[in-house]
Amino acid sequence: MSNKKSILDKIARNELLLGVVGLGYVGLPLAVSFAQEKNKVLGFDKSEPKVNKVNAGQNYIGDIEDEDLKDVVSKGYLTATTDFSTLKACDAVLICVPTPLDRFRKPDMTYIESACIAIGQNLKKGTFISLESTTYPTTTKDFMLPIIERESGLKQGEDFWLAFSPERVDPGNRDYKTKNTPKVLGALTQDGLEIGEAIYKMAIENVHLVSSPRVAEMVKILENTYRLVNISLINELALLAGKMDINIWEVIEAAKTKPFGFQAFYPGPGIGGHCIPLDPFYLEHIAKKFDFDLSMIHTAGHINMRMPHYMYIKIATALNRHKKAVNGSKVLFLGVAYKPNIDDERESPALPIMDTVAKKGGVVSYHDPYIPEITTENGNSFKSLKLDKETLMSADCVVITTNHSVFDGAFIEEHSKLVVDLRNVIKEGSDNVYKL
Amino acid sequence: MSNKKSILDKIARNELLLGVVGLGYVGLPLAVSFAQEKNKVLGFDKSEPKVNKVNAGQNYIGDIEDEDLKDVVSKGYLTATTDFSTLKACDAVLICVPTPLDRFRKPDMTYIESACIAIGQNLKKGTFISLESTTYPTTTKDFMLPIIERESGLKQGEDFWLAFSPERVDPGNRDYKTKNTPKVLGALTQDGLEIGEAIYKMAIENVHLVSSPRVAEMVKILENTYRLVNISLINELALLAGKMDINIWEVIEAAKTKPFGFQAFYPGPGIGGHCIPLDPFYLEHIAKKFDFDLSMIHTAGHINMRMPHYMYIKIATALNRHKKAVNGSKVLFLGVAYKPNIDDERESPALPIMDTVAKKGGVVSYHDPYIPEITTENGNSFKSLKLDKETLMSADCVVITTNHSVFDGAFIEEHSKLVVDLRNVIKEGSDNVYKL
Repeated sequence: MSNKKSILDKIARNELLLGVVGLGYVGLPLAVSFAQEKNKVLGFDKSEPKVNKVNAGQNYIGDIEDEDLKDVVSKGYLTATTDFSTLKACDAVLICVPTPLDRFRKPDMTYIESACIAIGQNLKKGTFISLESTTYPTTTKDFMLPIIERESGLKQGEDFWLAFSPERVDPGNRDYKTKNTPKVLGALTQDGLEIGEAIYKMAIENVHLVSSPRVAEMVKILENTYRLVNISLINELALLAGKMDINIWEVIEAAKTKPFGFQAFYPGPGIGGHCIPLDPFYLEHIAKKFDFDLSMIHTAGHINMRMPHYMYIKIATALNRHKKAVNGSKVLFLGVAYKPNIDDERESPALPIMDTVAKKGGVVSYHDPYIPEITTENGNSFKSLKLDKETLMSADCVVITTNHSVFDGAFIEEHSKLVVDLRNVIKEGSDNVYKL
Repeated sequence: MSNKKSILDKIARNELLLGVVGLGYVGLPLAVSFAQEKNKVLGFDKSEPKVNKVNAGQNYIGDIEDEDLKDVVSKGYLTATTDFSTLKACDAVLICVPTPLDRFRKPDMTYIESACIAIGQNLKKGTFISLESTTYPTTTKDFMLPIIERESGLKQGEDFWLAFSPERVDPGNRDYKTKNTPKVLGALTQDGLEIGEAIYKMAIENVHLVSSPRVAEMVKILENTYRLVNISLINELALLAGKMDINIWEVIEAAKTKPFGFQAFYPGPGIGGHCIPLDPFYLEHIAKKFDFDLSMIHTAGHINMRMPHYMYIKIATALNRHKKAVNGSKVLFLGVAYKPNIDDERESPALPIMDTVAKKGGVVSYHDPYIPEITTENGNSFKSLKLDKETLMSADCVVITTNHSVFDGAFIEEHSKLVVDLRNVIKEGSDNVYKL
């Protein structure tokens, strides 16, 4: 029996053993989704605490229902391990490892590299491999393929199949989860495309096929570049609007009444999270190899980089109107998550603003209902304060950095001396409220 | 009776005489919409031919049904005139004049200025005035108001009311016309806002009120800046994709399967029409007065300006593969309208590409089913050729510059030696088709 027929048969009989490498906010929901469809799933992660949690049925990802994880673990559909040699047993491997940027905004490919080495060294014939991590176009073919073929001694298209299918996880999105978010898939060869489609369809409603991994890689970057560029645009317009005495929030609400050709984006203290501030720079990186300068991404990135600084200036300006300097003033930040109603402070723009205020002599504190403690890049550690009248009243300036739904704008305004509202939480502001 | 009560009474009794200044693609549909609701409308235009056409019931605007114009003219609801002294009779005046940029991309305010002078010199007490033309924020208050008060000797808020309500005409849009496209309105004073709302509601289903003309001015610019920036972004990504051997059209189709947070824009030879290539530069202009540099608009404008040049390079590269130089080659352009299915070639990117090809020695011709003849900026005049086998076969290179729905990609491909398809009209291309 051919390798292809063999794996398609296993899929048809629900006997595929699926490996998921990386059990973070992408990998774990994906593993659970497949397990819920009664597929055996082996989760791989280098972190022993994570693996132990999974095996104990303890959920640590906001987008997964605790009960769902417990259920698939207790029924034996999902098991986790730190032992990558077990990869040998898998018929298909989905790679969901981080692809961060380093401090010089260059792609850090080491996670993908080690995943490929581990998979290559433990690859059995007839395995389907797919990368889900966002990365620059050409990665699958030019970066991953040589490593896996070298480490395994096997040949893509005959002995195994390599594909790319970008994750589209939107943390906190209550409407779209793994199952009902269409999945884009591109493979190096036609057999790989057919096998990949059959596999993803076990857990995902719609799979959209494209002609190559390179196209699929570009799709994800386009999606997030669109967001980076538009958020940067509205941030720049918000800064101008502030100078022109125009309420940008009112402008956006009115523009939204246009029933065609417009999508609203909102300003804020900067762009956070693990996708939008990073993904476009993967493309900027590879573009240089093609002697190409991506001026839109470059400009958008520049605006985004400067936003925390502008926000510091806003805070200093507000304090100044109260005849206070930042140096010695108590500044309370409300919300350090990078977006509302989640517990993730990665790349959150609040943190560099806090660092800047602290560096300039401000006495910094914060409250976030979802994040009990944080450490900033500058090494400042804080514990979340209780949000009550006393906490608000004791601050010289209250800065709203995340629009968590639980924040009560009227309450915050009533009990604060001075508010800098970077998220339009306070709809009808008094003289003591300064908005972005 | 107060001026306010008097005009509101007229509105209630359908006895308002409405003046519309400028009978172009914005003013005439607006005039017809009001007339269809049985309001008396006086249309003003400096062009005698236009005025004569209107009075003869002869339609010259694509978005108006011929029958609709004929109907309101024959029933006496709509009359046109070149005599601006008749403005004296009007209870309300809506200004729909052009706001072009000059050759140095600076706002040309002369049309608004002369409209304000004419209105001011013929203003009766109790008149409502609204500007619909796209312009930079602060125009209504800082540019128009002083002219009208000076010329009329009357006072805004007491003797007349001044407002801004941006047109949102999308030529060729079959779903959204004047009546069902929500209208944003901002006035200098509260009375003006109430009167303006009452007037616009006579012809338009939804009127969205904002706190000032300045906000309303910014709304329109935001809407079109959003489009400029996103089209420029996808154009830049298309140029990179070309170098990376990625089909950008396939990428966009796949990205569109994301059910949230994405809106598709398509690349093309540049941005045309009378709004998107112009409006953002109104904002860039006024921003300088506030010591502000709009880097996103600047970068987007730069890409857009360069697109015709890049497109020329694409044509030259395609010809080169056939061992032909531009100099002496016959280059046939299909479509010179700035967008599909309309008869408007204003700011169309096809024209500068044709000029460049001609300047480099190419023998240029074109076909457009909607535009029988054109003259380019360089003064080259052309007549539209018939689109048939012979026309296609005689060209060394066929360039698709507008995706009119009537264009048959398969037919064009079959009978052309070489096609440069800048609009993805040919879905399954052979080796002789080069796509943007």
